[in-house]
Amino acid sequence: MARNEQISLGAFIHPAGHHVAAWRHPDVAPDPLNIQQYIQIAQLAERACLDTLFIADSLAVFDSPVAHKMARSNYFEPVTLLATLSAVTRHIGLIATATTSYNQPYHIARQFASLDHLSGGRAGWNLVTSDAANEAANFNREQHFSHQERYLRAREFYQVVEGLWNSWEDDAFVYDKPGGEVYRPEKMHPLHHHGEYFRVRGPLNIARSPQGKPVVVQAGSSEDGKALAAATADVVFTAQPTLDKAKAFYRDVKQRLSLSGRTENSLKIMPGVLLVTGQSQSEAEEKYEQFQQLVEPDVGIALLGRMLGNFDLSGYPPDEPLPELPLSDSGQQSRQALLLALAAEENLTLAELGLRIAGGRGHRTLKGTPQQIADELQCWFEEYAADGFNIMVPHLPQGLEEVALQVVPELQRRGLFRTQYQGSTLRSHLGLTVPAFPPRQ
Amino acid sequence: MARNEQISLGAFIHPAGHHVAAWRHPDVAPDPLNIQQYIQIAQLAERACLDTLFIADSLAVFDSPVAHKMARSNYFEPVTLLATLSAVTRHIGLIATATTSYNQPYHIARQFASLDHLSGGRAGWNLVTSDAANEAANFNREQHFSHQERYLRAREFYQVVEGLWNSWEDDAFVYDKPGGEVYRPEKMHPLHHHGEYFRVRGPLNIARSPQGKPVVVQAGSSEDGKALAAATADVVFTAQPTLDKAKAFYRDVKQRLSLSGRTENSLKIMPGVLLVTGQSQSEAEEKYEQFQQLVEPDVGIALLGRMLGNFDLSGYPPDEPLPELPLSDSGQQSRQALLLALAAEENLTLAELGLRIAGGRGHRTLKGTPQQIADELQCWFEEYAADGFNIMVPHLPQGLEEVALQVVPELQRRGLFRTQYQGSTLRSHLGLTVPAFPPRQ
Repeated sequence: MARNEQISLGAFIHPAGHHVAAWRHPDVAPDPLNIQQYIQIAQLAERACLDTLFIADSLAVFDSPVAHKMARSNYFEPVTLLATLSAVTRHIGLIATATTSYNQPYHIARQFASLDHLSGGRAGWNLVTSDAANEAANFNREQHFSHQERYLRAREFYQVVEGLWNSWEDDAFVYDKPGGEVYRPEKMHPLHHHGEYFRVRGPLNIARSPQGKPVVVQAGSSEDGKALAAATADVVFTAQPTLDKAKAFYRDVKQRLSLSGRTENSLKIMPGVLLVTGQSQSEAEEKYEQFQQLVEPDVGIALLGRMLGNFDLSGYPPDEPLPELPLSDSGQQSRQALLLALAAEENLTLAELGLRIAGGRGHRTLKGTPQQIADELQCWFEEYAADGFNIMVPHLPQGLEEVALQVVPELQRRGLFRTQYQGSTLRSHLGLTVPAFPPRQ
Repeated sequence: MARNEQISLGAFIHPAGHHVAAWRHPDVAPDPLNIQQYIQIAQLAERACLDTLFIADSLAVFDSPVAHKMARSNYFEPVTLLATLSAVTRHIGLIATATTSYNQPYHIARQFASLDHLSGGRAGWNLVTSDAANEAANFNREQHFSHQERYLRAREFYQVVEGLWNSWEDDAFVYDKPGGEVYRPEKMHPLHHHGEYFRVRGPLNIARSPQGKPVVVQAGSSEDGKALAAATADVVFTAQPTLDKAKAFYRDVKQRLSLSGRTENSLKIMPGVLLVTGQSQSEAEEKYEQFQQLVEPDVGIALLGRMLGNFDLSGYPPDEPLPELPLSDSGQQSRQALLLALAAEENLTLAELGLRIAGGRGHRTLKGTPQQIADELQCWFEEYAADGFNIMVPHLPQGLEEVALQVVPELQRRGLFRTQYQGSTLRSHLGLTVPAFPPRQ
């Protein structure tokens, strides 16, 4: 399997947009529960032939003294949202985030298999672990799991989910009316999993899904995260600030694949990137500045505390450098390292660093003309820093409209992006094969 | 609140139809994962102005030596299915079954609140407890919970879900752009639940839903089930074989409401009823007989074993009377009593009893002309044996089409059923009020 000759593009969707102050922008309709707006966004992304929509998630409201000043406590549950959008789209992939920390694998296997069937093979699961005490408190626990335990649990969780997705051979269900047989019993394979965290007999109560397995996305960039991704993921979502770091990360993850007997092209690396489009560089800068003006310092600092690993920074002086913080045990370890480096390099105060991440949240930000943005994306793609990108936009649907009408056509002119869908499944868009049913002893 | 002057009607949907042999019928397309067929069914039910669709569920494949001869191991997960259908319907209610035994209340509260927002106020939750070892085995347990523990857990589960649905006052989210405030903090109410089975801090990460709370359905007919329904349910789904028994059940449940300070009309009792429509009584009988011919005796007996409470009856002689069975500890206690009485009254063999329940599964079966069927429904409604009915049909979509085109118009002619929707939420169809946000200390 050769590397795709074209870039993969996902649209990473926060209700009002990715910028922390998006909801305050005069052009934005901030109601996060307006399904018509989501339908508009999904159809816009599909007209642009994007590979997928990608929905983040949390199992709690945002936890901060200024949570009421942030639009992070009211949103659709992602799987139900994407199931709804499956009915009004035909091609675009549908990736939802779901945690392994506070779920049961039977439910997750089932929901994503169901979504894959409902959408004709367009489902993806962004497998995450949960690192926040406020989520733990909604699920019978005082504290979140330790980093190590989260990953042990995640790995076993994935193993169970994958096993359940392979409960039935592809041709198990025959609905043989004259013979009176719904399925061939020898093609049903219970799992009989007995592990450290889970005991699951199986089989799953739904047939193997159109993609063989839904696309699995992983975002961990820690050592544990990279190891898990190399063993299990089809797509890696990551935050990479510079070309050099992105190339190193790319090489690192791709090289790990061979340990799991996988080819380099069986996993797509798609860093996040915040795009701000203008007729000129300065127009793009001004556009972005409009959002930045709407960020109150305490809101930027609260977001920063989350990005650094669930720290409440509200007690620190905003105009002084970042205080010494303990190493995070959260899922934000690599983000913490990235931001500490940035603060040190540019000698930023707490408030300045908060403002810096208000848009991209540690992801790279590109502000410029469609040509300038396309240049950068092309460079990263050709330099093997990325197989594609998860596109973030400051506000929705406007920001995505600009990408769809300006950046995507520029990539298409360069032959770097499809002008129409070739297949109908997410795997086909990403150039990933449908895994064969695994051989049984 | 006066009793509705009209009947409530739900369409109870099994993939190919309610009859155990539906999938073998020559007119039936048996693929249970054909979303286009579900869309057709949902739109058909909506054109007939039905109150709701109603989807059953299980968290395991059917457990029987003849499971491969039964179409009960391959189907959509109900919440994702209904989310998809929400996009292609405008009025009809969407009720999904979800168990309290192998779920966490935060997930359930969230999924149904999300579905309620996605559908504009049409979601319903059929709250059940799980009674089968094959479900337990998919969720880390050797055995299912005892009857008593199931209900203790269910009651606390409901309490948490209801509390989470009331996390936010209706006007909590303001998106005040100039003031920079997304929500009014004093209108957010964490739950801080510390119970026997669950510790859940809350709040839920989604606003209070259009219906205040999604419609809650309960199907338990045991003492525990009736008590739970009277305390918590908006709708009771029940199997009642005769007018007298149905009236007694109706009175019993309605009288219990006052113990919870509720009015009689705050809960709708909707027995299941299998409808087989013909131009004449004998045509309907013949239609039904066509399905019965397709039932292999061991399949009928396997279904019977499940209805009696998870017994494997495959070792007993099919042509002899029902063997002595221990009292069921399953959720099928009342169904067991009903079937034992039927077998004794009519002196039925195991195979005959299996065949008898192959269509209605213990629910009443009406075979006749649209007028005859309407007469029976009208009688039960006027005699206070039912506020409405969950309609089952032998095969789909044909059986439902007959109901929609023949039975519903007959009820409409009699003024017993709406000719157009008056409201847009499931609560409004059922004549149920939106619960006010509960007062806080």
